[in-house]
Amino acid sequence: MGKTTSKPKLSSRAAGMPASPIRRLIPYALEAKKRGIEVYHLNIGQPDIPTPESFFDALRNFPGKTVEYQLSQGNPDYIKALSEYYRRCGYDVSEEDVLVTTGGSEAIIFAMQAVASQDEEIIVFEPFYTNYAGYAVMSGVKLVPVTTSVETGYHLPPREEIESKITPKTRAILICTPNNPTGTVLTREEVQTIADIAAGHNLFIISDEVYREFVFEGRHTGVFDIAGISERAIVMDSISKRYSVCGARIGCLVCKNRDVISAFLKFGQARLSSPSVEQFAAAALTRLGEDYFEGVRREYRIRRDVVIDALNRVDGVVCHRPHGAFYVMARLPVDSAEDFAKFMLNDFSVDGHTTMVAPGDGFYATRGVGGDEIRIACVLRETDLKKAMDVLIKGLRQYRKI
Amino acid sequence: MGKTTSKPKLSSRAAGMPASPIRRLIPYALEAKKRGIEVYHLNIGQPDIPTPESFFDALRNFPGKTVEYQLSQGNPDYIKALSEYYRRCGYDVSEEDVLVTTGGSEAIIFAMQAVASQDEEIIVFEPFYTNYAGYAVMSGVKLVPVTTSVETGYHLPPREEIESKITPKTRAILICTPNNPTGTVLTREEVQTIADIAAGHNLFIISDEVYREFVFEGRHTGVFDIAGISERAIVMDSISKRYSVCGARIGCLVCKNRDVISAFLKFGQARLSSPSVEQFAAAALTRLGEDYFEGVRREYRIRRDVVIDALNRVDGVVCHRPHGAFYVMARLPVDSAEDFAKFMLNDFSVDGHTTMVAPGDGFYATRGVGGDEIRIACVLRETDLKKAMDVLIKGLRQYRKI
Repeated sequence: MGKTTSKPKLSSRAAGMPASPIRRLIPYALEAKKRGIEVYHLNIGQPDIPTPESFFDALRNFPGKTVEYQLSQGNPDYIKALSEYYRRCGYDVSEEDVLVTTGGSEAIIFAMQAVASQDEEIIVFEPFYTNYAGYAVMSGVKLVPVTTSVETGYHLPPREEIESKITPKTRAILICTPNNPTGTVLTREEVQTIADIAAGHNLFIISDEVYREFVFEGRHTGVFDIAGISERAIVMDSISKRYSVCGARIGCLVCKNRDVISAFLKFGQARLSSPSVEQFAAAALTRLGEDYFEGVRREYRIRRDVVIDALNRVDGVVCHRPHGAFYVMARLPVDSAEDFAKFMLNDFSVDGHTTMVAPGDGFYATRGVGGDEIRIACVLRETDLKKAMDVLIKGLRQYRKI
Repeated sequence: MGKTTSKPKLSSRAAGMPASPIRRLIPYALEAKKRGIEVYHLNIGQPDIPTPESFFDALRNFPGKTVEYQLSQGNPDYIKALSEYYRRCGYDVSEEDVLVTTGGSEAIIFAMQAVASQDEEIIVFEPFYTNYAGYAVMSGVKLVPVTTSVETGYHLPPREEIESKITPKTRAILICTPNNPTGTVLTREEVQTIADIAAGHNLFIISDEVYREFVFEGRHTGVFDIAGISERAIVMDSISKRYSVCGARIGCLVCKNRDVISAFLKFGQARLSSPSVEQFAAAALTRLGEDYFEGVRREYRIRRDVVIDALNRVDGVVCHRPHGAFYVMARLPVDSAEDFAKFMLNDFSVDGHTTMVAPGDGFYATRGVGGDEIRIACVLRETDLKKAMDVLIKGLRQYRKI
């Protein structure tokens, strides 16, 4: 008492928050830019694909004189459009199964918080979308990692290995297919195995399917493709990547379990409403069909091949050609991918250009794993991506000589 | 194990989430509307004031071809505009003191999570903005209420009474001035007392100042008006009410303590970005000056007087004429304000109209307090508000005869 000069202490969760591996090297990039270097940003999943014009048309035609709160579950017209989208995907989704969220981010937070209490556990497959770790810290939930590796194309390990991680505190298994950061598309058998484990242990399945349309070989299997698990299946989704509109913070949760949707709604009521303007404009995007996705898919497939072909030119680089999404994880012949990423920003350029990548360790929960890996986001058009990869590979050769 | 037919259990926090007192009677309102009744919505702080035209102009002129993520701390142009706004308010705020949030909602969540760990405590004055309770449950934080009452105009109790609630687990005191739901504007002496208590016990002060401009008598004192506490003062803010743009989910946090801002940034990085389109349009609003606020303030003052004058016509109603914001709390001569609110929706109308209010108990954390109070939001223009209050008072007289 009475220590008026001391600073108040931050919470343990503030101290425990991981820094984003995608964003933590930004200060080095800003320094490089100050020195006149142009940086190819392959570190972040911010594609250069134009947002469809119908989004901007909608912005110009926002109705009404007052920008009002929407219902906490989402704008009814947008929910209707979403449920139609899911039915076109072949899923039996009705309007009351959907809750609009403020980005996929909020969808994950709501899902984690609905299924797990303080110190309860959710099984994830690493490498995983790095922000899962931050949401877990914010929510007091423990992520229990099951490691996958580049040698098996980041596919799931045998059922027994997954089940060995289940404890009395386990509440859910979280999957992401097509995967960020690996691009791996789970097979139907793999999703079925997850469903069987969840049913056998009475767990939820949280399925992150934001890259659903971006599958280049084979086909996407979502959790709603598996019969008999509708009470335990929670889909989290987002329009960010689907329509290249990352800055519009609009996602959603889909679940057939009424208790789960009720919990989501109470979380949603606490934050009142998702963005009104962006929901309105998002509704216009859901009308886009297969022809739109075919074009985008073709583009991302070309980019994937550019990245993989470039990586395959370097001895000691290990990577697999992913079947979906727009990321590549690669193991580099270096001790520390973080040091290499910093070297690229601090000490290397070709004709005034350098390339920024995300160090791989931030995508793993297990300490000491992924330190020699990087994630590359295929977010630049072919010509720029070729240049960026050329710079990256020259930098890697140079770095290995030091 | 193996109970394949059982449903997985939701988290205790999902079960513990309070239903919004502002929104929980919506099903009754929907039923009334189905019967052809028009409902005056005085239950929710959704004003009918038009959003300034500059917001819509900005929507029509959103730049670029791709709606990209913004920096996690916010769009730099918008942060600059915000820091200029705070300097016009007389506060020494620079750009690095500001983090843009997704609505005031996220600002409160980030503030709570940064200062308090699981089971740690934040002191609040009840009645309070009801959604604080939901955020606390989501964050595992305990709100410790200090009760204020209509008899003292919902002003703060003596310092000793506040200090008696401080325990080793207390991390912050949360104030809201002008207040939602009471409209009470804290005096400079009251804010100074909070500052002294916080300094004496090494606590944070979280100050909700979203109604800063809406003061009808006297003047607003914010936490930044008090010297010597810049390391412990956190302002949370929102444009929702200030510019009548509730559906644009744009708020912010302001703090001079670098450790706190760093924690906010890590939370912000986990959710990547606040809404891009709405941030861009919000920047146009910050250029509005005193002439804009004078007009809005005049309008809300008229509305306040309409509500208070109507309530004062009924024997047994206790209320005070609030000096700010646009809400009125009133104690009614009924046993259950919730039953009365339901009666208004289910069983009463005048010429096909009824009035919806929010039951008061949901604004208190102490059980059994506020059950005979209601909150009225002055969100309709004078003519409509007069009709709505007339219906409310006729309903109250009718209800008391039953």
